[in-house]
Amino acid sequence: MFEENPNQRIWINEVAPRDGFQIESLIIPTALKVDLINRLSKTGVSKIEVTSFVSPKAIPALADANEVMAAINRPTGVGMVALVPNARGAERALACNVDEMNLVMSVSETHNLANLRMTHQQSFEQLNQVSSAAKGSKTQLNLSLSCAFGCPMEGTQSADDVMHWVEMALGIGITSITLCDTTGMAWPTQVHSLCKRFIQTFPEVPLTAHFHNTRSMGLTNVLAAISAGVRVFDASLGGLGGCPYAPGASGNVCTEDMVHMLELMGYNTGVDLRNLIQCAALLPDLVGHDVPGQVLKAGHALDLHPIPAYVKTAREHALGRSTSS
Amino acid sequence: MFEENPNQRIWINEVAPRDGFQIESLIIPTALKVDLINRLSKTGVSKIEVTSFVSPKAIPALADANEVMAAINRPTGVGMVALVPNARGAERALACNVDEMNLVMSVSETHNLANLRMTHQQSFEQLNQVSSAAKGSKTQLNLSLSCAFGCPMEGTQSADDVMHWVEMALGIGITSITLCDTTGMAWPTQVHSLCKRFIQTFPEVPLTAHFHNTRSMGLTNVLAAISAGVRVFDASLGGLGGCPYAPGASGNVCTEDMVHMLELMGYNTGVDLRNLIQCAALLPDLVGHDVPGQVLKAGHALDLHPIPAYVKTAREHALGRSTSS
Repeated sequence: MFEENPNQRIWINEVAPRDGFQIESLIIPTALKVDLINRLSKTGVSKIEVTSFVSPKAIPALADANEVMAAINRPTGVGMVALVPNARGAERALACNVDEMNLVMSVSETHNLANLRMTHQQSFEQLNQVSSAAKGSKTQLNLSLSCAFGCPMEGTQSADDVMHWVEMALGIGITSITLCDTTGMAWPTQVHSLCKRFIQTFPEVPLTAHFHNTRSMGLTNVLAAISAGVRVFDASLGGLGGCPYAPGASGNVCTEDMVHMLELMGYNTGVDLRNLIQCAALLPDLVGHDVPGQVLKAGHALDLHPIPAYVKTAREHALGRSTSS
Repeated sequence: MFEENPNQRIWINEVAPRDGFQIESLIIPTALKVDLINRLSKTGVSKIEVTSFVSPKAIPALADANEVMAAINRPTGVGMVALVPNARGAERALACNVDEMNLVMSVSETHNLANLRMTHQQSFEQLNQVSSAAKGSKTQLNLSLSCAFGCPMEGTQSADDVMHWVEMALGIGITSITLCDTTGMAWPTQVHSLCKRFIQTFPEVPLTAHFHNTRSMGLTNVLAAISAGVRVFDASLGGLGGCPYAPGASGNVCTEDMVHMLELMGYNTGVDLRNLIQCAALLPDLVGHDVPGQVLKAGHALDLHPIPAYVKTAREHALGRSTSS
């Protein structure tokens, strides 16, 4: 894992415009969202989760889903994804011609009820309806399995349950899966074990991993997942996002911090990091507060600082002392 | 690396009372420092860097080094370490009967001049004088090599240079080494490579690794070092500490976040995490600001949240809908 130069391709799915913005208290003007998404689509990320076709009452911050989808550029090679919570949302998303609908269901029924107000069975019926609605369209169907690495109310979830829901989803026409550590509870050995089991059980099914940095393990979990064979990651510009169960803690894995680490390790993310950091630099003004990303504050590890003038003086002084002693 | 249950011992050297407090603008009363150190010495950490015998003019925050050393409990099995920048500091430290003097020199001469106002040669003369002064005492001598993984002004340092200074230090009676990523520039593959080279070159020399989370790679570097064979880590309660070259970025690797991750992964740190988190909870009041540690805010990953009442209602409502549909 830690040997030099893996020279391996890693794909990045940028989720800040949806997963990040949805919990911001400031309503970001549609034009500024569109501008950010257009900039992001030039950075080299492979997908962008641009919005959610959820009820505007439930998430006012994303009430402009139609307007955003209509206004953004659609460059070839960048998949535009929207989160779709139910059949009604799917109709709107399909009308906007999204490249991918990201459906969501929690492995934990308690969390599913808390978050979506549906039992497992009801959620699955919705997935089925969405899948039927998408038939004949070019829109891809991904399922994000929330709490795959643990639920804050139920605790660690059984790997058997996770595999069960994956199998059920594949059975109704969903073609790719995201295993989500929704509330930042996962740890590296657990991540390795679950991702490895997924890849062994469903070797042909595209898998994305989605981590939060709630307990500082975001990037360690990314490395553990890579070591298990995962090659696609959700990440959020600036580390936007968060978790209602951990007020004050960090949000999603930060895209630029992840790309910075992976590129230093010799991975090929396809992302232009300087360009990405320029996008991240827009966030504090956009959301009205400091963001958790560290590379934005500290700069690239290989960018040198100028040698301060006092060092030259100190050197002369030191050498002077050295001569006189 | 990411397989389950390594069941390996990792030792923790807590550095917040020195490395953390030295950059705080608030002067913490001596009695509160002593209280924190006494609490830390009951958590199971193997060493505590309690202070620095530096000039009070240079670091006013640690001007009470003698008083702290005189007042703290000295339980068996917990090494009380003090940073010692020069021969004058060594005299004071020896008079206080410290268990270990932590000497410091930067692999980068530019950083050494910026930080210590000495050339390499002058620093090495100081190390030599301190080593002579310590002869016959029971005090151990450790050398912290700053910027071993990169200097913010000179960039990446050559591994040959690092090995050269280790060899020089061993030659004058220093018995253990800490490789420091002083400004948070290290990345996992680099850490693995340098630590592996150290262990292969000096298999008998106790090695500690010291990382910062400046660019979010703190815990990934810890795992890379473990994978190379490192078993002892500096870490700072609450993630206190920082770096003048990265204003606003995170500080040292956070002790409780590191212990939390390692214990979940099956390592044995010897540390009582609940006890440690209680110590970290004292910090915001002590230093007058929020601290970077995440577990303090988010809680242990395995601590469950109560199921909110509305989930029960949601379940009943959902099942009701299910029946009526």
